Amino acid sequence: MTIKLYGFWRSIASFRVRVALRLKGIEFEEISIDILSGKQFEPGYDAINPAHALPALVHDGNLLIQSLPIMEYLDQLYPGHPLLPAGAKDRAYVRALALVTVADTHPLTVPRVRNYLAKTFNAGQDAVHDWAGHWISEGFETYERLLTQRPPAPFAAGASPGLADICIAGHIASADLFKFKTSAFPAVAALGARCFAIPAFASSHPFAKPGAPKQA
Amino acid sequence: MTIKLYGFWRSIASFRVRVALRLKGIEFEEISIDILSGKQFEPGYDAINPAHALPALVHDGNLLIQSLPIMEYLDQLYPGHPLLPAGAKDRAYVRALALVTVADTHPLTVPRVRNYLAKTFNAGQDAVHDWAGHWISEGFETYERLLTQRPPAPFAAGASPGLADICIAGHIASADLFKFKTSAFPAVAALGARCFAIPAFASSHPFAKPGAPKQA
Repeated sequence: MTIKLYGFWRSIASFRVRVALRLKGIEFEEISIDILSGKQFEPGYDAINPAHALPALVHDGNLLIQSLPIMEYLDQLYPGHPLLPAGAKDRAYVRALALVTVADTHPLTVPRVRNYLAKTFNAGQDAVHDWAGHWISEGFETYERLLTQRPPAPFAAGASPGLADICIAGHIASADLFKFKTSAFPAVAALGARCFAIPAFASSHPFAKPGAPKQA
Repeated sequence: MTIKLYGFWRSIASFRVRVALRLKGIEFEEISIDILSGKQFEPGYDAINPAHALPALVHDGNLLIQSLPIMEYLDQLYPGHPLLPAGAKDRAYVRALALVTVADTHPLTVPRVRNYLAKTFNAGQDAVHDWAGHWISEGFETYERLLTQRPPAPFAAGASPGLADICIAGHIASADLFKFKTSAFPAVAALGARCFAIPAFASSHPFAKPGAPKQA
């Protein structure tokens, strides 16, 4: 049984699932759906994910969508290298950190929103870039406050990287795509450096994927 | 020990937690933070939630933020009237339904985004209203496709209302705030009618809260 991940090189939600799979040492095959050219709306993929978004995962005949539920699913079925702590309070903390980007920031910067801004408000390329930068920066500010309140030790929930670290690393990868720096956010930057020193993270970064543009 | 919920009458994320608490029969006290006048940024609330968002919950000395992690926390500690099914596949389905609004739609329509649109793109009241309507409608379309693919029986995950139903009902409540109709989405509308026939949902609707404007 091969696990199939429908993803795309610059999809940050796909990045999250790639890291989760690799931290757990689960083999998978990735199928690229080019969301920049609208392949997520075509009939073939519509049948896989009626929400027209990435990622989707096929595991043991089950078709799963949305990065967080997929990671929780993998964590329940593959308990090696847990992504979530056991206690209710710590689980809530990790999930809340995840949602700062998964809910409150990242959805504001995805292609469908950037395209709609351009169309509806006649926003040029720079204005759309600034829009993304504003929300990415808001996410960093929130993370910096939260990580200062409860410093990583050395990862968000303790000794090993998990769900929160994956999502924060994804936020950093998103900033990389737009060429925004993390230097104003030292707690976030330090956590990110710790994450991207790990092969599961580094090999999943958008710029490490086939199809990514060459970086200067 | 009194559970404290920091919420606001028109906060849809607060609505979700109110319903979860009431479905489980958990007593709580709600403290209103007026997010329309910026109370979430003031020092008192900043100390509670550095993410400057609603809701926050204080339970047994634990301070929790973000509606989904709070509902998962309550579900782990108060197993009566479970909000999530037991199996990994069904849990993933329920969480994915939740995130269609929690991640992909609702964050695009909250006050901070509407305010930023107005400021940055000089968007007038009608344009901001149309923006919200566009994303709320996208959410309904996705829900309609998903609920047609796997019809509620009679709730999203089976016999009793849970996490997915709460989030879909919140999406409908959000549409109510903007005066958008659900009639074009029959599967969603039928599920919503089933939910709002239940006192835990009806009594938690924004229009049922103190502070809400009188409805015509």
